[in-house]
Amino acid sequence: MAPFTFPHQGSRGVLVYSGGMDSTTLLHECKDRIALCVSFNYGSKHNERELVYAQDNCRSLGMRHQTVALPFVNELFRSNLLMSGGAIPEGDYSKKNLKSTIVPFRNGIMLSIAAGLAESNGLSFIMMANHKSDHEGYPDCRPTFVEAMHLAIFEGSGRLVSLLAPYTNLDKREIALRARSLGVDLSRSWSCYKGGELHCGICSTCLERKRSLEGFDTTSYSS
Amino acid sequence: MAPFTFPHQGSRGVLVYSGGMDSTTLLHECKDRIALCVSFNYGSKHNERELVYAQDNCRSLGMRHQTVALPFVNELFRSNLLMSGGAIPEGDYSKKNLKSTIVPFRNGIMLSIAAGLAESNGLSFIMMANHKSDHEGYPDCRPTFVEAMHLAIFEGSGRLVSLLAPYTNLDKREIALRARSLGVDLSRSWSCYKGGELHCGICSTCLERKRSLEGFDTTSYSS
Repeated sequence: MAPFTFPHQGSRGVLVYSGGMDSTTLLHECKDRIALCVSFNYGSKHNERELVYAQDNCRSLGMRHQTVALPFVNELFRSNLLMSGGAIPEGDYSKKNLKSTIVPFRNGIMLSIAAGLAESNGLSFIMMANHKSDHEGYPDCRPTFVEAMHLAIFEGSGRLVSLLAPYTNLDKREIALRARSLGVDLSRSWSCYKGGELHCGICSTCLERKRSLEGFDTTSYSS
Repeated sequence: MAPFTFPHQGSRGVLVYSGGMDSTTLLHECKDRIALCVSFNYGSKHNERELVYAQDNCRSLGMRHQTVALPFVNELFRSNLLMSGGAIPEGDYSKKNLKSTIVPFRNGIMLSIAAGLAESNGLSFIMMANHKSDHEGYPDCRPTFVEAMHLAIFEGSGRLVSLLAPYTNLDKREIALRARSLGVDLSRSWSCYKGGELHCGICSTCLERKRSLEGFDTTSYSS
């Protein structure tokens, strides 16, 4: 099991919740400690698809949920993940494929806003579901980033808010297994970067999702 | 003089520019290295006043300037600095006075967005004009925060973007003297938290501004 070290007994926090399979698993795993889920609409091609699941899962669990719009990301940032960017590459995560889907410092932005929300609401931590399978391609998922960002949030909030990232050293398969043991219905989560009606099955994140769910009931995969 | 260590020769960056006297001084001091100034409208009572100076000073210097709206701060955060908050306290910076004007993790949010903008534009640093006089009251101005935030930005951007905060160990008086030696017209900057037609002269930031400009031409003070 991933280590869960909450700041203090009974402390509650904010989950950065995309509606993808990793944060959906973390939501179910820590629902008793989460006082608020926050999702961000930053203009990615798949935001509208994943946000439906984020809202829906929060409603089912009776969780408070807030969507924050960040239109400036789509307007001013460069990434093929965004509506304003080029086509989503197909095939496995190769270095080149991946690079074009980086949204510069996205996790830093989302965590900073979540930290401000936590402090405003008297909550003592924020959580995100970054994981090991993303370390190579996405610098803002790596332990070095997470550790520094925790310290920045902790010090910058006057030592009121901590960052917890309990899946940092788990890979996506381990998260999927965790979801299964918790009874999480992963068909109610979204991964595909293309954001079409159904998961495309051929973009890098679809291939990764499929691999992580090998041997699972096939209804888990698509939605 | 404050240390200016740029990431590499000829590197250019983004200035987080409020239109206040500290960042106006930094703008003038580093204008040859700044490719983009970014201001944030987060719904404070004085945003509309300071943003006029930010735009105006950038226009005068021929700098590229971008204002990013963050309406969710005013809607969701708790602070008396915000339109949605209570009255701005009057009198000196006392601990209680100050606390009510903290906008939770504001610098972290602004710096994170600036970092994403820098990376999107191929720029190698971001700058802010936090200073020593704010250390006691505002945790996100302290060296511990700045150092951790630099590391978070550096690692989270794949080592492409650094944070420079060259005034961290200067007090406001030292910045004012620096402005004078650079010939900066500080009457074209805004401090007052109340955001009225003129500087109120009695809120904590007005008192601090006045003290830092003691002995200066009186036209420097008000605007």
